[in-house]
Amino acid sequence: MNYQEILEDIYKSIKPELKRGKVADYIPALARVKKEQFAMSITLLDGTNYSVGDVDKKFSIQSISKVFTFTKALNIYSKELYKRVGVEPSGNPFNSLVQLEYENGIPRNPFINAGALVVTDSLISYYKDEYRALEKILTFVRDISNNSSIDFDEEVAKSELEYGDRNLALAYLMKSFGNFENSVEKSVSTYFKQCAITMSAKELSRAGLYLANGGVDPITKKEFATLSQTKRINAVMLTCGHYDASGEFAYHVGLPAKSGVGGGILAIIPNVMSIAVWAPSLNRYGNSHAGTLALEEFTTKTGLSIF
Amino acid sequence: MNYQEILEDIYKSIKPELKRGKVADYIPALARVKKEQFAMSITLLDGTNYSVGDVDKKFSIQSISKVFTFTKALNIYSKELYKRVGVEPSGNPFNSLVQLEYENGIPRNPFINAGALVVTDSLISYYKDEYRALEKILTFVRDISNNSSIDFDEEVAKSELEYGDRNLALAYLMKSFGNFENSVEKSVSTYFKQCAITMSAKELSRAGLYLANGGVDPITKKEFATLSQTKRINAVMLTCGHYDASGEFAYHVGLPAKSGVGGGILAIIPNVMSIAVWAPSLNRYGNSHAGTLALEEFTTKTGLSIF
Amino acid sequence: MNYQEILEDIYKSIKPELKRGKVADYIPALARVKKEQFAMSITLLDGTNYSVGDVDKKFSIQSISKVFTFTKALNIYSKELYKRVGVEPSGNPFNSLVQLEYENGIPRNPFINAGALVVTDSLISYYKDEYRALEKILTFVRDISNNSSIDFDEEVAKSELEYGDRNLALAYLMKSFGNFENSVEKSVSTYFKQCAITMSAKELSRAGLYLANGGVDPITKKEFATLSQTKRINAVMLTCGHYDASGEFAYHVGLPAKSGVGGGILAIIPNVMSIAVWAPSLNRYGNSHAGTLALEEFTTKTGLSIF
Amino acid sequence: MNYQEILEDIYKSIKPELKRGKVADYIPALARVKKEQFAMSITLLDGTNYSVGDVDKKFSIQSISKVFTFTKALNIYSKELYKRVGVEPSGNPFNSLVQLEYENGIPRNPFINAGALVVTDSLISYYKDEYRALEKILTFVRDISNNSSIDFDEEVAKSELEYGDRNLALAYLMKSFGNFENSVEKSVSTYFKQCAITMSAKELSRAGLYLANGGVDPITKKEFATLSQTKRINAVMLTCGHYDASGEFAYHVGLPAKSGVGGGILAIIPNVMSIAVWAPSLNRYGNSHAGTLALEEFTTKTGLSIF
Repeated sequence: MNYQEILEDIYKSIKPELKRGKVADYIPALARVKKEQFAMSITLLDGTNYSVGDVDKKFSIQSISKVFTFTKALNIYSKELYKRVGVEPSGNPFNSLVQLEYENGIPRNPFINAGALVVTDSLISYYKDEYRALEKILTFVRDISNNSSIDFDEEVAKSELEYGDRNLALAYLMKSFGNFENSVEKSVSTYFKQCAITMSAKELSRAGLYLANGGVDPITKKEFATLSQTKRINAVMLTCGHYDASGEFAYHVGLPAKSGVGGGILAIIPNVMSIAVWAPSLNRYGNSHAGTLALEEFTTKTGLSIF
Repeated sequence: MNYQEILEDIYKSIKPELKRGKVADYIPALARVKKEQFAMSITLLDGTNYSVGDVDKKFSIQSISKVFTFTKALNIYSKELYKRVGVEPSGNPFNSLVQLEYENGIPRNPFINAGALVVTDSLISYYKDEYRALEKILTFVRDISNNSSIDFDEEVAKSELEYGDRNLALAYLMKSFGNFENSVEKSVSTYFKQCAITMSAKELSRAGLYLANGGVDPITKKEFATLSQTKRINAVMLTCGHYDASGEFAYHVGLPAKSGVGGGILAIIPNVMSIAVWAPSLNRYGNSHAGTLALEEFTTKTGLSIF
Repeated sequence: MNYQEILEDIYKSIKPELKRGKVADYIPALARVKKEQFAMSITLLDGTNYSVGDVDKKFSIQSISKVFTFTKALNIYSKELYKRVGVEPSGNPFNSLVQLEYENGIPRNPFINAGALVVTDSLISYYKDEYRALEKILTFVRDISNNSSIDFDEEVAKSELEYGDRNLALAYLMKSFGNFENSVEKSVSTYFKQCAITMSAKELSRAGLYLANGGVDPITKKEFATLSQTKRINAVMLTCGHYDASGEFAYHVGLPAKSGVGGGILAIIPNVMSIAVWAPSLNRYGNSHAGTLALEEFTTKTGLSIF
Repeated sequence: MNYQEILEDIYKSIKPELKRGKVADYIPALARVKKEQFAMSITLLDGTNYSVGDVDKKFSIQSISKVFTFTKALNIYSKELYKRVGVEPSGNPFNSLVQLEYENGIPRNPFINAGALVVTDSLISYYKDEYRALEKILTFVRDISNNSSIDFDEEVAKSELEYGDRNLALAYLMKSFGNFENSVEKSVSTYFKQCAITMSAKELSRAGLYLANGGVDPITKKEFATLSQTKRINAVMLTCGHYDASGEFAYHVGLPAKSGVGGGILAIIPNVMSIAVWAPSLNRYGNSHAGTLALEEFTTKTGLSIF
């Protein structure tokens, strides 16, 4: 069975699952998204793409953007970054303040909200202001996607900010511990714009290609991370990519991957391919319900887990 | 031995303790206060006052103001207030976010910071804007003190706001749970102004008189709380008035009392007197070190604990 | 209205409440107790007793026994006891391990289970073996009751031990921190026997008399605690006597008191009287539902709160 | 550079690190082990072994035994096992009770102590008594090692039990939640015997071979787990194998691995080899200090991480 057939098989078997779970509803802009949509797209190292479903439909990548800002910050700060954020699974929901308080404002990893806020804050510090930082983040995402049209959705970003009290709380708590450098309001607003980037499954699978190829885009030959950084980003995706269900995901799927509440998941098979899946309905951990199942079926069918 | 002699005895025995502990140093305006100062002042129900030490020296009443805003909110909302704040000791430091998160944004009691912020927020809601709310709080404190000159210190309030990130975090966390009604910035700023009210020990002991007399000022005959409300305010002072050392304080002193990081403590002996003590140096729980000892000596010498 | 009339009034108004809540059901021996029973009994300093309801019916005093063992341990160890147990409200359910772990095996107060286990353990250390310790505890309870017939219920004690896994967990956790001196099994078994002491409401109100009279039994003139110790026991009863509803109880009732899951409550009005109330059905905090209401009505009607 | 040269290089560069950290000292039997020892041994799928250092010196495998009992329990119970233990990283120290209490007695994963105790308890239930269960565990370890002489150290097991109060606390807590089936004392004692199994680095690397080959011993052809189970065991080793430093380990080393406080680590490179390393001195997370560094150097030198 070739990849295209496998994807089509998965699409068929996953269809009944699309109505289960529920779409993220904490902001109106996300709550409106129709449940029964699905797309899955893989891009091989030579650029070949196999896709199924609504592969050109744009969705909000949300927390998947954290992988890209983490890459960027790692480029800039290298080991220095770890004074401000760890690489340890949290054992707590994605937006918990408990652990952050016990651990003196140092977030456990760059993929929980507190950690991602610190990463964005560090980029704003480096680029001196939040507009330039956002511009650089967008440029980076366009570069790894080899697609200059990628942008964010103003309405979603605005809507998030309106309901963003908990993220403001996280940032102020870190600030009280001296682990936040810029204006909380400006940084959180930049963070929400980065989360509001929209991509299609096809675009997202293309964007992840550098992570499947040791940091170098195999088509454009641009280097986005060193080999060692790439392995480490993948490791953090595996241990921390699905909030408090990261262990479950590693157990069932066995791939480094990052999910977003928009229903997208980016998964990497090192040296083989980049995979994007999208199905807006979420399980109780905030990860795409059908997307997770589709990836599990994919690794089962292809035997391509990292374990 | 009469009260004056007892106070002078206490002053003498407490003097060596004044240099122990350390002055609140999280804001410059408080850090500058000289350690070796002390004042103790009692006001009996008939208005007689006995005082010792720097009794006319103004200090920042800080959290003691929470007793007054709580009284005010109880007047306005009665039982409805308890939907937004409890009356249970917290078992945690005064500014902890942990419990607040586990308990869905409902602070344990009105004397931890989160609870006091909710109380101030409720007053802003009632008085429609934060300036009017502040005006009403000041008027109330002037009324209970029978002294129209009481005011707050702008510099202290401004300084607090500059270092107020954790309080902003608390307020945003409560807002994310739907337990905060007004602008976080405006409410927190009002809260810091209320905390920056300055009073002398003599003024403070006069201000507490209504709590020693079932809610009615025994001199002016004005009613500031019902008998039942007064008993309950005193009960909350006893169980929650000294943060995570409330049990210790009840154990050693045995009086309803509220401390502030400015080094003041207001203590009530129901039906007998109101006591204010001030010594700026704090113990590790953030309560006046020498002030606590002075009160313990007072109840030991007079046998006037409530137990 | 005299005391007898007040008690009868309370009995009448409390009756409809007797069916609310539910009887402790974690052990068969307690689950069998009939819900709709009630007794209230007050003993004045001169020995006069007023009672209403099933005043001679024996019930399991359970955690109320902790007041008596705490008194005993305080007699023996004085301040040394506080190296092993605090006097601070816990802000957590009565049998929580969380706080105990964070605080290195030192229980917050002698009235949560961990604290009471440490107190019993300290008595076993002092009396060298668990039988002698139990004997001394029983003798003490007989002495304060002026009633040599007081005993414990073997069946209840056995039943508790069978379902006592969490208490064993608490004791082993303290042992792992070096805060438990004797065999865990033996100490926990002694503790359950002490909890299984049965008394009638009339007997219990008589037993508490020393706490209303500065430590000295006003009838037999025996001293069971110093004045200072007595005040402190009362203070701990007020701040910690009703688990994680101690603040609520202080707020509504305003008296030092200790509850047990058998449905009993012992309350003290310093210098006035000792009160016992019994109603087996519990509220969600594990305290007697109707008993709490009865005490609230009593302090409202008599104005006899300590605040 | 061939494997033997790589190992020798590592040995050389790791030597100065052997004196850092400290040997497990909670029991005398482990505290006595000399710090400056080191062994590293790899076994390829065809059975070829490369070793360096004290490769035949036996050490206490301690928590590494949890991998083997987990394999065994997965064989027996399959998915049913997950009703009693999860596969999620804990975000807490290995022996914490906090999370266990919040999560109603269901341990986060089989590699923290609580989870391993439940696994051993499940084996005792299956084999009806603790002697037979221990026998079966030993037989299993002998089978995967292809070495019938493997045994446990009575003295270490006895010593652990003497200082095993916290594990008894964990087991009793789980029992109180209904998640423990056999006598706590007997199960904990069996658990300590399993932890006291001694192996040399060479033996341990041989024992892990089935995990590098999809569950089947490539030499004896015996199947110890299905392919799917094997991938999942490896996934749990990656996400949970190093207590609260699992993320760090994945980040720096990038291999599924399990450490023990005896200083051993078993690491798996799927489809390539099994690695054992031993260096008794531990880092602050309780994992072998030099062992972790040796493995990091190994994956850096060979490029053989899974990411």
